[in-house]
Amino acid sequence: MIYELVVPQFTKMLGNLLAVLDESAKYAGEKKFDVGVLLQSRLAPDQFNLMRQLQIACDTAKFGAARLAGTENDAPAYDDTEQSMSEIKARIQSVIAYLQRYAPADFASAVQRRISQPRWNGKTLSGQEYLIQHVIPTFYFHVTTAYAILRHHGVALGKKNYLGDMPYREAA
Amino acid sequence: MIYELVVPQFTKMLGNLLAVLDESAKYAGEKKFDVGVLLQSRLAPDQFNLMRQLQIACDTAKFGAARLAGTENDAPAYDDTEQSMSEIKARIQSVIAYLQRYAPADFASAVQRRISQPRWNGKTLSGQEYLIQHVIPTFYFHVTTAYAILRHHGVALGKKNYLGDMPYREAA
Repeated sequence: MIYELVVPQFTKMLGNLLAVLDESAKYAGEKKFDVGVLLQSRLAPDQFNLMRQLQIACDTAKFGAARLAGTENDAPAYDDTEQSMSEIKARIQSVIAYLQRYAPADFASAVQRRISQPRWNGKTLSGQEYLIQHVIPTFYFHVTTAYAILRHHGVALGKKNYLGDMPYREAA
Repeated sequence: MIYELVVPQFTKMLGNLLAVLDESAKYAGEKKFDVGVLLQSRLAPDQFNLMRQLQIACDTAKFGAARLAGTENDAPAYDDTEQSMSEIKARIQSVIAYLQRYAPADFASAVQRRISQPRWNGKTLSGQEYLIQHVIPTFYFHVTTAYAILRHHGVALGKKNYLGDMPYREAA
């Protein structure tokens, strides 16, 4: 189930985010303001702005897959210098493309793998702890915060824009 | 892994939320305003207020566990009439207690189970689709939105308040 939680589902959420950013650009166009204003917006003065929320969502998805599969050294590096809507959209698309490299078998050893990241100073979590207690809540935190910043600044979004389509089966 | 994703992890997040609400009550006390103001706050005029975000987070956790285990008819009912901080905290504590009824074996058939809810008009998702595409993103959406509303209104919170403690293993 790790593959399904991380690869297709994060891909779906990042795709939803691209559509939300397109809605935001449309809103800026209608209201005749620079969409870059939204990318610099935040909900509190000591909170990361929308651009940074999007960058962290991208990194959480990328490192989540890479560390769980034990392929962190092959993950693409990004220098967090995006300034424009087109640049951050390209980064999201790049992470979506990166996730597609993975297959379910790549996560066969993920549950037991000991995982660390630079700021943990050598401390580790098991793959399952990292996935459930860190990657998933962190990813949804930054995607939802991005959505909340845009909602607060007037973009007309509903929860369906966040969740995306469901693969419903019709009643028999 | 369904048990770990839903029972201990949602329990942990709801516990973090209780601590965040205590911080919020403390902030209201210091600033000498009624904490009920925060419960009525929102980020956009057509968004649910904090109280409703908390109620939906509770219901998402409760129904997530109950439907995946096939025990929805036994789940406690709540009538969404909470008005005060103590009432919504009691509801969160009640859902935490409810989640503790479950053991890993209760989810043995969850992946394949066909799941529906009233507003889907008879349409269904598999248990795995419901968990990954609906329950998890919806739960974190409402918990993060609650956090964002409080952040926006001045409560001093960091992401650690949201994520909670990690079960790090020290470097060897």
